[in-house]
Amino acid sequence: MEKELTKLMSYRPDIRVLDATLRDGGLVNDFFFTDDFVRALYETNAKAGVDYMEFGYKASKEMFDVNAYGKWKFCDDENIASIVGDKENGPKIAVMADVGRCDFRNDIRSRSDSPIDLIRVATYLHQMPGAIEMIEDAKNKGYEVSCNIMAISNGQEADIRVALDLLGQSPVDVIYIVDSYGSLYPETLARVCDVYLEAAAKYNKKLGVHAHNNQQLAFANTIEAVGDGVDYLDATYASMGRGAGNCAMELLLGFLKNPKYREYEAFRFVEKYMNALKEDGIVWGYDLQYLMTGLLNQHPRTAIAFTKENRKDYAEFYKELTALD
Amino acid sequence: MEKELTKLMSYRPDIRVLDATLRDGGLVNDFFFTDDFVRALYETNAKAGVDYMEFGYKASKEMFDVNAYGKWKFCDDENIASIVGDKENGPKIAVMADVGRCDFRNDIRSRSDSPIDLIRVATYLHQMPGAIEMIEDAKNKGYEVSCNIMAISNGQEADIRVALDLLGQSPVDVIYIVDSYGSLYPETLARVCDVYLEAAAKYNKKLGVHAHNNQQLAFANTIEAVGDGVDYLDATYASMGRGAGNCAMELLLGFLKNPKYREYEAFRFVEKYMNALKEDGIVWGYDLQYLMTGLLNQHPRTAIAFTKENRKDYAEFYKELTALD
Repeated sequence: MEKELTKLMSYRPDIRVLDATLRDGGLVNDFFFTDDFVRALYETNAKAGVDYMEFGYKASKEMFDVNAYGKWKFCDDENIASIVGDKENGPKIAVMADVGRCDFRNDIRSRSDSPIDLIRVATYLHQMPGAIEMIEDAKNKGYEVSCNIMAISNGQEADIRVALDLLGQSPVDVIYIVDSYGSLYPETLARVCDVYLEAAAKYNKKLGVHAHNNQQLAFANTIEAVGDGVDYLDATYASMGRGAGNCAMELLLGFLKNPKYREYEAFRFVEKYMNALKEDGIVWGYDLQYLMTGLLNQHPRTAIAFTKENRKDYAEFYKELTALD
Repeated sequence: MEKELTKLMSYRPDIRVLDATLRDGGLVNDFFFTDDFVRALYETNAKAGVDYMEFGYKASKEMFDVNAYGKWKFCDDENIASIVGDKENGPKIAVMADVGRCDFRNDIRSRSDSPIDLIRVATYLHQMPGAIEMIEDAKNKGYEVSCNIMAISNGQEADIRVALDLLGQSPVDVIYIVDSYGSLYPETLARVCDVYLEAAAKYNKKLGVHAHNNQQLAFANTIEAVGDGVDYLDATYASMGRGAGNCAMELLLGFLKNPKYREYEAFRFVEKYMNALKEDGIVWGYDLQYLMTGLLNQHPRTAIAFTKENRKDYAEFYKELTALD
């Protein structure tokens, strides 16, 4: 397929950029961000033209200890409201809700009573009926709704097609292609896009992409998806996110040609806030152990453990992984 | 164009991998590698199935002070021979020679008297006649010969076509696409490939690719080129190279499906030798300042100076660069 953005001088106005720093980055520091950080992030997104800012998860307080995590694992509406104030000219507000780990009926209010605009339902292939239930609930409450089907690189294409038909018939607005393990190459992703685009066209849905940087391909896969017709693009400042992290906001805003996007604001935020997190000892980003789990299409949990244990015996780790394969 | 390697389960036997760690990495540490490092690198390349190992430059000893640089800036045949020994089962040996900075008539011997197999002529567009002279000299002496046209992202396509015609009519074996500034996106590179492929088909030449990682796209651009029909692939261990560095060997070997390539050997070398260089304070690799020069399609010299001065005021640097633009 000839890329729509092959005219790299121009841009597609349907593109939406979503900042997932607090949510995917929160997986690195258990959501302990300071209010100063979150306010500066919100202001940066507003100035940089970022379309959505994801504040974190709506996680069940029955299942998770509120004292063990920062507040953005739970995203109480009041906490969001205290950051965003009157919301003028700011990005739209998103939260993620995992199937089976969220008391969505109680914890997600009507949109008219909430600062939240977009509910992002995250599901595995085997949980689709649970996802549909949450999508319908959120839509009935007035929200924009997206759905991330996770770990598709380990799924069967036939199952993915069934999931896409279920989502197509649901009121979801945006269906996300998620490379949970950072195992997809751009040309593999292009083939996945073909499958999703078919469903999106049939059911009149938008598509999104959420990439991981295990093989230094999160940005490359994101711009491949742009060229293939995907509109919703997840990114995080300095790539902060679980394991190898995500597509870097500062790279993505530099690439996108819509003049509303201001990469200079991203550089300022990374300089002042993200580099400070790194200096404080918060560790994320591309390294050999993540390359290895990506290459082998495995969940990064072993690589995260390797990182936390401060291990440096990468070659030995690779032997362990291939024994698991 | 449908990618030839879309059959990602298979491989193209014409692919050749060239390790440029000593040469592009030497630009970071002025070529001061220990003999232990160089021997281990040679043995790693042999075990990993790497096809060529570039030892460094054939730089003029009239122009450059031999005491200011390590020996691999000059690549005396005797120094190479002392590393490679009898050369059985090892990679072929390459050196780079810059137009205007090499006494090629004297310093490059007959291939029959030298351990070197491949002379890589590096040139700017405005130096093509000098490059042709060096190519003919090397070919007459019996070598395989390649030519890197540098900084093409700042060149005019009409000039590139003239250069390709000159090279086509020369005895050069391989013409390299070089993304000197790390400014190309995969879809831009695909268009550059089209131009080069046309000349390659007309004149029966092979193509190569040498990428830089300013926008975290060195690996993505290299595998884009593989899919487009480019056979010679440059990579360096841990991406070591000028500024943001190059395509990482460990990523590339993991991607290539020819069973002769052994990524495990690359992991072992990075663990033991490359991470040690970093711990010794040698600095290279992706960072915001290189993203910025890549994005703006500028030579990285300002970003290298920023790095050497230990500056951290990235946003201020971006303002300086855009004033230069």
